[in-house]
Amino acid sequence: MSRPGVLTGSAMLVENGRITQVGSASRIENLTQAKKAKEVDASGCVVVPGLVDCHTHLLFPAPRLSDYEKRIGGATYEEIAASGGGILSTVKAVRSSTAAGLEAAAARSLGLMASHGTLLAEAKSGYGLETGLELRLLRALHRVNGPAEVVPTCLGAHAIPPEWKQNPDGYVAHVCGELLPEVARHKLAEFADIYCDDTAFSVEQAARYFEAAAKLGFGLKIHASQFSSIGAVELAVKWGALSADHLEAIEPSDVELLARSETIAVLLPVSVLHLGLSRYAPARSLIDAGSAVALATDFNPGSSPTPSLPLVMSLACAQMRMSPAEALTAVTINAAAALRRVESAGMLASGRPADFALFNVQDYREIPYYLGANLLKLSYRAGKPVYRQGGI
Amino acid sequence: MSRPGVLTGSAMLVENGRITQVGSASRIENLTQAKKAKEVDASGCVVVPGLVDCHTHLLFPAPRLSDYEKRIGGATYEEIAASGGGILSTVKAVRSSTAAGLEAAAARSLGLMASHGTLLAEAKSGYGLETGLELRLLRALHRVNGPAEVVPTCLGAHAIPPEWKQNPDGYVAHVCGELLPEVARHKLAEFADIYCDDTAFSVEQAARYFEAAAKLGFGLKIHASQFSSIGAVELAVKWGALSADHLEAIEPSDVELLARSETIAVLLPVSVLHLGLSRYAPARSLIDAGSAVALATDFNPGSSPTPSLPLVMSLACAQMRMSPAEALTAVTINAAAALRRVESAGMLASGRPADFALFNVQDYREIPYYLGANLLKLSYRAGKPVYRQGGI
Repeated sequence: MSRPGVLTGSAMLVENGRITQVGSASRIENLTQAKKAKEVDASGCVVVPGLVDCHTHLLFPAPRLSDYEKRIGGATYEEIAASGGGILSTVKAVRSSTAAGLEAAAARSLGLMASHGTLLAEAKSGYGLETGLELRLLRALHRVNGPAEVVPTCLGAHAIPPEWKQNPDGYVAHVCGELLPEVARHKLAEFADIYCDDTAFSVEQAARYFEAAAKLGFGLKIHASQFSSIGAVELAVKWGALSADHLEAIEPSDVELLARSETIAVLLPVSVLHLGLSRYAPARSLIDAGSAVALATDFNPGSSPTPSLPLVMSLACAQMRMSPAEALTAVTINAAAALRRVESAGMLASGRPADFALFNVQDYREIPYYLGANLLKLSYRAGKPVYRQGGI
Repeated sequence: MSRPGVLTGSAMLVENGRITQVGSASRIENLTQAKKAKEVDASGCVVVPGLVDCHTHLLFPAPRLSDYEKRIGGATYEEIAASGGGILSTVKAVRSSTAAGLEAAAARSLGLMASHGTLLAEAKSGYGLETGLELRLLRALHRVNGPAEVVPTCLGAHAIPPEWKQNPDGYVAHVCGELLPEVARHKLAEFADIYCDDTAFSVEQAARYFEAAAKLGFGLKIHASQFSSIGAVELAVKWGALSADHLEAIEPSDVELLARSETIAVLLPVSVLHLGLSRYAPARSLIDAGSAVALATDFNPGSSPTPSLPLVMSLACAQMRMSPAEALTAVTINAAAALRRVESAGMLASGRPADFALFNVQDYREIPYYLGANLLKLSYRAGKPVYRQGGI
């Protein structure tokens, strides 16, 4: 993670949306195909792979501004939920949204994300919490025509819906017996995710969910140890989950367990900052123990309303002591790995899609360094421009 | 601070760079002058006064990336300074810069700041630390033709220069006897600032500096209680300083003292985040006690490389529990007050310069809420566009 493979004095040749050459500028500029090509001058810039955001809840109809003010005023998560806010208020908003409204919301989120360098984004359902609406969310994510590619994840087990409050086990059985098979049948998601914590689903419920999801061929993901450590990491490793996400409350023994596994640790530092907390996931211990760490925005209306991976990188460096190189790896190739996209995203090399971003910096370390600054100059997806910086 | 005076269904009329009408859109659209005017459609947007950044060190020749990596790796401030980094490494870079190079550096900073909504920025000298170079920095700040207006501040007492290390009192005497009079004579700065802390100048030295600066007619500013509480706030109040800035380590008794004074508390939360710390200034106590609080970026290459006031607002809300309304007040009219510009900046009203920013949001609370997102759509200075958002 600490060796990002920086090239200088280099060029890329792009043909039909794919990179066909990467290497010395003087060599590539002399190729016959290069002489016919349209030139994009990247001098004075750093070119990075299109950023990959591997954990988001980007499809929400509206911001939750009154929850935000209440939390600033000191209200707890429980108090906000009790006053009609929280995840269930977004569920309520989704339940009254049209398919077109949901697509427009997803497109707006993707536009914001792309304007900060993201070209591939995971997006979870989880604001429907009933079969028809979860399917509607996943269909909207498939249909949305935004500037970044979307990889949908089924998060049917995001929260316990009000109508199942007295019978969460029943809801899990319903999700396993009806929702997941429907999602699989229509090929609407590659991954299945569950929120496992004191305030959400138990480890036992998550185990049942993983069993059903694995049988249906889903890659497994889990919201683990965000607020409490109840065994979710152990479960993830046992089931060979693709990623365990959050990990702010992870125990040292689970750090070792993860490091010896193939499960990727996906860290989401902006949610810590935005919730007014200060306990970040132990990125340093995870990396030093040998874990593969990815970073993501967790873009969602409650705990992390940020579309910006550069901000995530800044926080990872300043507050979690990841080096700029580690942070860059964590939002490119490691994030691609957390989405099973190592062959097509997160790296610039011959044969891969021409998905890349030019930043207005002379050294990649400036991307996290200038925190909160949007330094993206220009980005390309499959060789076509998708974002150009503003100005007059 | 909690009542930002939001108008809806409204319009502004701008003539010759000034606002001449603010009020009901239906009334203003029917005025004769409005019928001849070029219309800017702000529907679906929030229009705010051009943001005011009242504490910056924006003029630096280069980022300090190796300090950044060392600090992430665990080096202390002292270790970084001992290895050739810190403020004095920027001083060294300034000493080998040309006047044109300095202007270009300031213009780049201002461009970044303006792309996040700032239209008026204070800018401190302090990286010259000898009369000639401090004057050169201030002249560069006067000459720079950036998209935002600059208010230069003399910070001759930023750090003890190496050649005065054995005799800091001598350096203070030199600054008071030579630098400040020269700055006053050439009218190069309106304000004089000093860094008063355990690791910088003492309260006694700051008192001598204030005495000399006040006699020469400078408005007084002070870097107070960033790391330790040594009496700087008391000194600021005693001398009627315009602002006391930082205040992370302020004592409760000093909160009361400030609240009963005319001195504005300027808080700089990004420096806390970027330095990997977690003790923010007690914004809530200050506001509740009755203090006027402003927020600023502290844009500088060591402790706060951010050009973004929206990020500062986000941190103030999430980590310091200021409401979005208080945060907006703190980067507009209160920041203008910290620069003696209440008559011309920080508020949209008839007779004032037409300096304003359109944000791509439906509610001003979204500006801090979407943290790390650049939501600026369009901004105008003296009625002329200075920034337009990117896209394809």
